[in-house]
Amino acid sequence: MQPPGIARGRRGRSKEMRAGHVVAGTTSQLRRALPPIEPWPAARVLAVHEAALRLLEDAGIEFLGAAARDRWRLAGAFVDEASTVVRIPREVIAAALPTAPASYVVHGRTPDRSLLIGENAVAFGMVSGPPTVEDRIGGRRPGNIEDYRRLVRLAQSFPIVNYLGNQPVPPTDLPAESRHLDACLANITESDKPWGCSAIGRDRARDSAEMAAIARGLSLDEAMAAPGCSTVINANSPRRYDGPMCDGLMAMAELGHPVVVTPFTLMGAMAPVSLTAAMIQQHAEALAGIALVQLVRPGSPVAYGAFTSNVDLKSGAPAFGTPENVKATLIAGQLARHVRLPYRASNASASVALDAQAAYESLFSLFGAVMGGANMVYHAAGWMEGGLVASFEKVVLDCELLQGIAEIVGGQEEEDVDLALAAILQTPAGGHFFGTEMTMERYQRAFYLPILSDWRNFQQWSAAGAPDAAARATRIWQERLDAFEPPPLDKAIREALDAFVARRKDEIARGIGRPD
Amino acid sequence: MQPPGIARGRRGRSKEMRAGHVVAGTTSQLRRALPPIEPWPAARVLAVHEAALRLLEDAGIEFLGAAARDRWRLAGAFVDEASTVVRIPREVIAAALPTAPASYVVHGRTPDRSLLIGENAVAFGMVSGPPTVEDRIGGRRPGNIEDYRRLVRLAQSFPIVNYLGNQPVPPTDLPAESRHLDACLANITESDKPWGCSAIGRDRARDSAEMAAIARGLSLDEAMAAPGCSTVINANSPRRYDGPMCDGLMAMAELGHPVVVTPFTLMGAMAPVSLTAAMIQQHAEALAGIALVQLVRPGSPVAYGAFTSNVDLKSGAPAFGTPENVKATLIAGQLARHVRLPYRASNASASVALDAQAAYESLFSLFGAVMGGANMVYHAAGWMEGGLVASFEKVVLDCELLQGIAEIVGGQEEEDVDLALAAILQTPAGGHFFGTEMTMERYQRAFYLPILSDWRNFQQWSAAGAPDAAARATRIWQERLDAFEPPPLDKAIREALDAFVARRKDEIARGIGRPD
Repeated sequence: MQPPGIARGRRGRSKEMRAGHVVAGTTSQLRRALPPIEPWPAARVLAVHEAALRLLEDAGIEFLGAAARDRWRLAGAFVDEASTVVRIPREVIAAALPTAPASYVVHGRTPDRSLLIGENAVAFGMVSGPPTVEDRIGGRRPGNIEDYRRLVRLAQSFPIVNYLGNQPVPPTDLPAESRHLDACLANITESDKPWGCSAIGRDRARDSAEMAAIARGLSLDEAMAAPGCSTVINANSPRRYDGPMCDGLMAMAELGHPVVVTPFTLMGAMAPVSLTAAMIQQHAEALAGIALVQLVRPGSPVAYGAFTSNVDLKSGAPAFGTPENVKATLIAGQLARHVRLPYRASNASASVALDAQAAYESLFSLFGAVMGGANMVYHAAGWMEGGLVASFEKVVLDCELLQGIAEIVGGQEEEDVDLALAAILQTPAGGHFFGTEMTMERYQRAFYLPILSDWRNFQQWSAAGAPDAAARATRIWQERLDAFEPPPLDKAIREALDAFVARRKDEIARGIGRPD
Repeated sequence: MQPPGIARGRRGRSKEMRAGHVVAGTTSQLRRALPPIEPWPAARVLAVHEAALRLLEDAGIEFLGAAARDRWRLAGAFVDEASTVVRIPREVIAAALPTAPASYVVHGRTPDRSLLIGENAVAFGMVSGPPTVEDRIGGRRPGNIEDYRRLVRLAQSFPIVNYLGNQPVPPTDLPAESRHLDACLANITESDKPWGCSAIGRDRARDSAEMAAIARGLSLDEAMAAPGCSTVINANSPRRYDGPMCDGLMAMAELGHPVVVTPFTLMGAMAPVSLTAAMIQQHAEALAGIALVQLVRPGSPVAYGAFTSNVDLKSGAPAFGTPENVKATLIAGQLARHVRLPYRASNASASVALDAQAAYESLFSLFGAVMGGANMVYHAAGWMEGGLVASFEKVVLDCELLQGIAEIVGGQEEEDVDLALAAILQTPAGGHFFGTEMTMERYQRAFYLPILSDWRNFQQWSAAGAPDAAARATRIWQERLDAFEPPPLDKAIREALDAFVARRKDEIARGIGRPD
């Protein structure tokens, strides 16, 4: 399932210099060389899988979408139209799951941006969904199309960010019915990376998939075998999929476009105060959504998403990057591997300041995601305040964390031992290695070069105005945006996209729905 | 080797409320339930071990201490008195290593503070050694006895800090020849946790061991079987042990007190720009020091210390918490396990501000230490600016990181699956779990309660004055110190300690050395 054009692991990485910063990220995709952490013994993973099947069979899941219920009935599930509860026999799940591919590719507008989703490949995604956008220059403001574009440009400018999630912020200054078209257009014109679309309802899903196809010179039919966008479908936990999510899931599955099924289960709010219970519930909800994708179109790409954390039980406030969040993310990876599906996790923090807490909550959650075997890390760059805010400074901080973790898990140097011994002997006992032959050969590119870390001593740092990490991050995103140039886009394709957007806006204004 | 009184793992943890903060740390010692990460295949670990033996045999190590060279000569090593180089045949290493115990106990003044060093036990130590102390109230100042005492009190007040390293800051306002006595006295009177001593030369080592013995009502002879303090011996990398280090190592070994042998090998300065070369060099230096301990007194407790990071090759500045630091720490753990010795690593950061960088560099290095299988994490709380500064606020930040990582690696909930399923069904589909029976039962103590994290929303946080993590840390250490009460100390023991200190100060003033 490896597409041509994706370089493997460390060998393919390049280091680029831009706006005065040396970026030591991967333009190619990270391959995790360390095995995932497995907190639970296999027997416990199996027991939780079995418990989830019992939950689906005995208590069931609510599907508020009528078309989804029809599909379940056809597959042999027990549907109660009054309560909208669907009870799903384990045989139905067992028949549906095996058609889901263990990995798939989501295609960039430029081929070398395409991503393998599965195996030991890891893809990091831009923040998606917060209603508010913030930076230290402009303050806090509601999501809008100009900030949307700037966040897409930032995502494009950091090689470690592999894809755009669904809308870094919603462009709330545009009409709600058609803003998805402007959003998709910005994804395509400001970036050439794969992207996620809003699939709230059938029409948005189909419009987005069609624009991703046009961007690559394909028809929608042609793109079915090589999708250029994907979507996240959230369960409305506990045990419910609402109507628009059902319809969006089915529309994307019909088109063969990837669906990332993600229960959002905060223990103490949407799931019990019990890690085991939360894992059972999350697994049941995920399996139901994944099976529905396969019932709609066997073989359609689908991923197992998990987002289990906890609330502060004193206040009810959501918490992220907590030990419980990390443990749940590691264990959810075991459950995803148990059903042989690509795994999606997140980089999350509840901090309201770009401070130590923002860093440690995010790094804890990233540790859980990457060492849990996640193939996609949503919200990997820019997610603040439990998802309420997309922050420009947090993008920079997160990219530093992502690059660091990629270096750690991406593989080890395999220097020849005799060469290494000889290098030690280039310096006498008690000497130093500042000027040795190996140091001179390697000093340009030997070690990871951070973008945000400041290693000056106290005197030098004080003389430079004592900028903390947040202040440095502000300067870095400003430099990135100042230096930004959009990736080339064929003129005919741009015209086709503009024409499509114009036609659909006109149809939407006139109340004309999309033909299927 | 498990001493009585050490509770195991999570079961033994207590949660305490102090000064308005709920502390969810472990008063008992952490047991790591997750297996360590093994970046290198076994064959490569063996190859590096073999290369280190070749280095010791062919090029050797400088020992500037004459007594150490005598001991090596006696053991069959080739000693060049002119160059002080000792070339060590592999047979000498092979004969010395097996007598080193795989684990040992270092005893607290109160028995339940005693620590197992080895197996899957982890002990976190207070910052030790920076010349400068800093907090946001008092600013930066040279190490002094009052800050020494306050840092010991802070270490005592955080259950997650298991031991004091050697001198959180040096009390430079006291006479250099006798300040180690004041330091030891402060360790004993302000804390009941095990501690490290400065073993620069024989007398300091013996004074410290004797005071640790007196503190527990033992003679120095009796304490040889149950040591109450340990020391770190650093190689003067590359490939050199200086005179005072040689003498301190031998004095502690003669007394059967633990020696933590730690090369400090920054790639690009004290080691080559090559992870493999740095590992060979570090392993050779560590093995030489460890073997010397065993030659002095077979069976004396000794640990394998590693502190390999890199310098910024553009500026020569030391860097910590880097990807190279993490990889080296993980791999050094493999080398320590290869020779079946307890493993010591560190929590390190180069950041000059208590900001996002301080948090991520420390958490990266802690990840390497704990997942590398470290049994002791030195500098776990309070180390800043690459070891130049001991910071009160950093103590608080680090304790949050330590408590979080302890929760993650310390074991998983093993809830009954049927009970978990029943808990899910306490809430209808689409409902919430805020008031369910399980939530009400557990809300007091279900999840980890942080000390530093702030989960208020932006409005609440702004109304409270928008305190960032550094400002909150200041408040927390102030509250801890205000609420501090020293642990009880028997009056007779206190008098014996005071008498010992007075006698030794008098002897030192009159130029009288310690009898051996």
